Amino acid sequence: MEKLFFASDYQEGAHPSILKRLEETNLMKTAGYGTDAFCDAAREKIRAACNAPEAAVHFLVGGTQTNATVIGAILKPYQGVVAAESGHISVHEAGIIERGGHKVLSLPHDHGKLTAKSIEAYCEKYWKDANREHMVMPGMVYLSQPTEYGTLYSLSEMEEIRAVCDKYRMPLYVDGARLAYALAAPENDVTLPALARLVDAFYIGGTKCGALLGEAVVIPDPALLPHFFTVVKQHGALLAKGRLLGLQFDALFTDDLYRRIGKPAIEAAEKLRSALIEAGYRLAFDSPTNQIFVILKNGEMERLQEKVEFSFWEKYDETHTVVRFATSWATTENDTESLMALLAANP
Amino acid sequence: MEKLFFASDYQEGAHPSILKRLEETNLMKTAGYGTDAFCDAAREKIRAACNAPEAAVHFLVGGTQTNATVIGAILKPYQGVVAAESGHISVHEAGIIERGGHKVLSLPHDHGKLTAKSIEAYCEKYWKDANREHMVMPGMVYLSQPTEYGTLYSLSEMEEIRAVCDKYRMPLYVDGARLAYALAAPENDVTLPALARLVDAFYIGGTKCGALLGEAVVIPDPALLPHFFTVVKQHGALLAKGRLLGLQFDALFTDDLYRRIGKPAIEAAEKLRSALIEAGYRLAFDSPTNQIFVILKNGEMERLQEKVEFSFWEKYDETHTVVRFATSWATTENDTESLMALLAANP
Amino acid sequence: MEKLFFASDYQEGAHPSILKRLEETNLMKTAGYGTDAFCDAAREKIRAACNAPEAAVHFLVGGTQTNATVIGAILKPYQGVVAAESGHISVHEAGIIERGGHKVLSLPHDHGKLTAKSIEAYCEKYWKDANREHMVMPGMVYLSQPTEYGTLYSLSEMEEIRAVCDKYRMPLYVDGARLAYALAAPENDVTLPALARLVDAFYIGGTKCGALLGEAVVIPDPALLPHFFTVVKQHGALLAKGRLLGLQFDALFTDDLYRRIGKPAIEAAEKLRSALIEAGYRLAFDSPTNQIFVILKNGEMERLQEKVEFSFWEKYDETHTVVRFATSWATTENDTESLMALLAANP
Amino acid sequence: MEKLFFASDYQEGAHPSILKRLEETNLMKTAGYGTDAFCDAAREKIRAACNAPEAAVHFLVGGTQTNATVIGAILKPYQGVVAAESGHISVHEAGIIERGGHKVLSLPHDHGKLTAKSIEAYCEKYWKDANREHMVMPGMVYLSQPTEYGTLYSLSEMEEIRAVCDKYRMPLYVDGARLAYALAAPENDVTLPALARLVDAFYIGGTKCGALLGEAVVIPDPALLPHFFTVVKQHGALLAKGRLLGLQFDALFTDDLYRRIGKPAIEAAEKLRSALIEAGYRLAFDSPTNQIFVILKNGEMERLQEKVEFSFWEKYDETHTVVRFATSWATTENDTESLMALLAANP
Repeated sequence: MEKLFFASDYQEGAHPSILKRLEETNLMKTAGYGTDAFCDAAREKIRAACNAPEAAVHFLVGGTQTNATVIGAILKPYQGVVAAESGHISVHEAGIIERGGHKVLSLPHDHGKLTAKSIEAYCEKYWKDANREHMVMPGMVYLSQPTEYGTLYSLSEMEEIRAVCDKYRMPLYVDGARLAYALAAPENDVTLPALARLVDAFYIGGTKCGALLGEAVVIPDPALLPHFFTVVKQHGALLAKGRLLGLQFDALFTDDLYRRIGKPAIEAAEKLRSALIEAGYRLAFDSPTNQIFVILKNGEMERLQEKVEFSFWEKYDETHTVVRFATSWATTENDTESLMALLAANP
Repeated sequence: MEKLFFASDYQEGAHPSILKRLEETNLMKTAGYGTDAFCDAAREKIRAACNAPEAAVHFLVGGTQTNATVIGAILKPYQGVVAAESGHISVHEAGIIERGGHKVLSLPHDHGKLTAKSIEAYCEKYWKDANREHMVMPGMVYLSQPTEYGTLYSLSEMEEIRAVCDKYRMPLYVDGARLAYALAAPENDVTLPALARLVDAFYIGGTKCGALLGEAVVIPDPALLPHFFTVVKQHGALLAKGRLLGLQFDALFTDDLYRRIGKPAIEAAEKLRSALIEAGYRLAFDSPTNQIFVILKNGEMERLQEKVEFSFWEKYDETHTVVRFATSWATTENDTESLMALLAANP
Repeated sequence: MEKLFFASDYQEGAHPSILKRLEETNLMKTAGYGTDAFCDAAREKIRAACNAPEAAVHFLVGGTQTNATVIGAILKPYQGVVAAESGHISVHEAGIIERGGHKVLSLPHDHGKLTAKSIEAYCEKYWKDANREHMVMPGMVYLSQPTEYGTLYSLSEMEEIRAVCDKYRMPLYVDGARLAYALAAPENDVTLPALARLVDAFYIGGTKCGALLGEAVVIPDPALLPHFFTVVKQHGALLAKGRLLGLQFDALFTDDLYRRIGKPAIEAAEKLRSALIEAGYRLAFDSPTNQIFVILKNGEMERLQEKVEFSFWEKYDETHTVVRFATSWATTENDTESLMALLAANP
Repeated sequence: MEKLFFASDYQEGAHPSILKRLEETNLMKTAGYGTDAFCDAAREKIRAACNAPEAAVHFLVGGTQTNATVIGAILKPYQGVVAAESGHISVHEAGIIERGGHKVLSLPHDHGKLTAKSIEAYCEKYWKDANREHMVMPGMVYLSQPTEYGTLYSLSEMEEIRAVCDKYRMPLYVDGARLAYALAAPENDVTLPALARLVDAFYIGGTKCGALLGEAVVIPDPALLPHFFTVVKQHGALLAKGRLLGLQFDALFTDDLYRRIGKPAIEAAEKLRSALIEAGYRLAFDSPTNQIFVILKNGEMERLQEKVEFSFWEKYDETHTVVRFATSWATTENDTESLMALLAANP
């Protein structure tokens, strides 16, 4: 039997509709750097989907790059970005925010989430500290939706965070690397228009959501980031053949594909969660999107690793480990059933 | 008649063999970040083509990003990079080298080229200056092959520059954004193995040479850049679906495609140059690759612009302008003949 | 009655022997940038005091600047600096390390101190993490002696930390902003020669230890930091009239002054501690140098503030606050007795 | 005979009135970081001298540091600073501007001076360039008064540059490292109030103008640089014992001292220039302040070097060299006459 792949949601190529468009348009000649008609069309569709007719939309290549570019453009030199200790920018982006000159002000998290209360407490402490001028000012807030733990902010949670941001005049930025999986989750109530209404900048993930690569940055009020094109260039994030990104987002926002594309992943994850519980496994915690965190005995884990790719998450105790299974837009029922069979057989 | 496109060499999609491979492999599951089998295969083929069996090969996304990442990894904090005033890093990369903390030490150029003599004179002046410790030390040399003017370094010129680099202990780095057009030019005598022998790092351009995107960094002696993977990540230059880059370079280095892919561009450029001269146009200067620089009367230029896309290069005098026509791997005989007809008719 | 000052150890000018030397030498003409005879003499005396005849000694202006310059010179682009969460670089240097492109990898502390164990655990976790190449590598360790809490590393603690640094190939750097107060503390067993033997770089604080300004960086093996002069310049840390620093350190290292200069502060602090305990105050924790941390009722604190300058440290609970009294080389018996009288009267 | 010193204007200590004040105030206790009464008094006097009652005045330590801090605070990430190729920031600050992430856009100079015309031409070219979004935007202008060649901008020249800055919305910043020598030059018509009226930020040099160290940054409209205190800290440019700077500028602005302190240098330089011409030397060019540039035969130069310290400036031809003599506030008639005698005897 071939090995199963549940290690991540970027292990396949692209949604077939994207490949088809690539082929159809391959020898068309267009201008570069995102000034082509594919990009324009994609921008219009994204603005419509977000109900943000004035928004600037920029196409960048990857998530780490996008975070660094947007955060670097928003912050003043004397400011840092508030983020969860588990946030992607805090841990797994090799210090790119610091390379850009800014401190990540990391706060404890609840399964990947910040709370309005903890952000407010941090800001209040800073602004009341007599030595604050010797310290890094909290200048913006970074959230991931879904988070690195697969959890979701509810609309009311996000509105509360927005209120704290307003109180302390901090732009709010959302990393949507896996946004399609949020949008496809039944419990999600933060729609694209809600995001565009509540945050100052966010990106719609392509790489993990059916594109070959690419992330679409949405800036509802473009006055926030003047000359952002040059900032993008200066971060090495401007693609010469920008059409490659425009075309993919055009496809992803045609016929509502982006809202649908995460569904198979969510359904597969739900099946897997039920199967795991039924088979007597313990979930490390519950999460409503395409990532499943399971506590395995170390022996189990080793046996499973021979037959399926998954991710090490963290040590649980001396004899157990938390591992992550990720489903994707491309996960088939067959894949899911094979994994369920494996899991049922294993313990 | 449709408008002709001679503005650049990144106006089409990708070589058909690349699209074909994309389609064939789309739903295969692979690991991320360049650790997949496509990348490994491409690396092996590139090492073989460069006769550099020990070389490290990294796949990055675009040229500006690649320059910033490699240069940032090579330089010590107190050093800058020597480059031609016309070099891409000196002018058209939005200051990304400076954003990374380093000065571009720009020297006058001869149609885009530096000379061993001028580099040596600069270094000698620096090392003899009593105040040199208050100045930026020249820490490496950046060349483009072909240059931004479409010109080529000969093997002997490059060997001379290598000798100066050795004398002053400076790594030598070559930006090969358009390397395929150098390799396809009849007058070129700097082969891939010669590059790998003479320079400390170079990149083989994909974006402008038939790929959708991507550049392959070759480091003949990997000890030059320890932990380069993390540096790449830290520059936002690590692609999650690295397979997309590996697969393309695998295709470009299968059956010697990379050595052949620039030929149509060179042949088209030669035809156009002859036709231009015959039709009484003045070339601004001669260049042996896929870029042609013509001095047009301003009126001519404006009339032509209605029918063909080309690039403004620089003002020549009050009534004339230098413009650039670029051919590409995808330029057809039909395109070339249409442009020749237009040019013949215009004046 | 005039207000008493126990807010910090940089509230006076300089030790009289320094002013005297300034006056005697004022119109002498010397070369700039630390190349003068005063600097040379000071360097020799510091090397002798540290028993480090090969050491490079550089004079910089202030502590934050010194930390940024040394740390920026040591770290590779992909590395960060391990420090206590309470470390000066972690909190009170306005993000200067991040401005220089590096992450502060902050660990929990025990009254300002790191332990060999916690550093080792952190490094082990990093080096065993399968995703470590996406993370910032721990590249050096930063300690303060005394710490920001006035506590001291013992010789054996520092040797243990040195061993961990060796194991993970990390240079060890010590911030000695208040080093004179460590050297004057009876319980201290980390002498200057011990520091020079155990660490890769440290600085001998002048600003808080009797100089008008200035810190002396000692690099026992100068090969660690080639071209450090240029790095200093590039950090804006090179003083034109370097003699001003050389002269002061020459005075501080004449007749063992630096070893003696902290004594009055330590004696005053001991008296104050005893008096506080006797008067029924609670110390927040014990610390053996020139800083005293007391838990005051908020009302007490407010009354005291009218008569004496001290520092807010942190909220203890709703009705109590931790405050800091700092003594200095210039604290007189009179000052100390006045404060003791005030404290005795207050509650 | 003792060697003469004409190498620079920072070879002595401080003006006697400064040392006197240091001594008088040495054991007074004050708050740190520039919040003391000495700093406040100095600020008031500087505001009065500049006729800029609303100005923010910050005291920093040295010139390179000041340039980096102010320029870093003014520029947006996508901008660079326009400066003469001979500007201190372009050549002799070890790349500190680039370390801060910004390109120095250097223009040809006329004996150290930029012209309104050349700045305008540069800006016009930038703003008309179709590729400007791929380039660094000129974001501010840096001038030195006097320049590195000892030359001066006239009031009308500075007004013209101001007009160009207005046209292209660029703040104008003046490096006044040697400002006292401009103010003391008979031909100067740019007073402190004129500077405060015409520029957005400038600094009044202390280090080279009679202080031990220190530069006073004047920002006529403080809204230009919010949270500048933190930026200063973040550049390692905040002095703990800020009083040391405040006290010195207080002395320099008491009884108009700063306007008078450069006079002895100017008078000495005038005498030396006349004597040199009379003795048959060639001046490399004329300059009205405290620096004199002479073309010496190489043999002459070597003989002179045994008896007097001066600076190498540049090679003139194979047999001649341009050298610089600098006078200072502390140059005595005796020094000047000794040098004149030497020069008369030499050829």
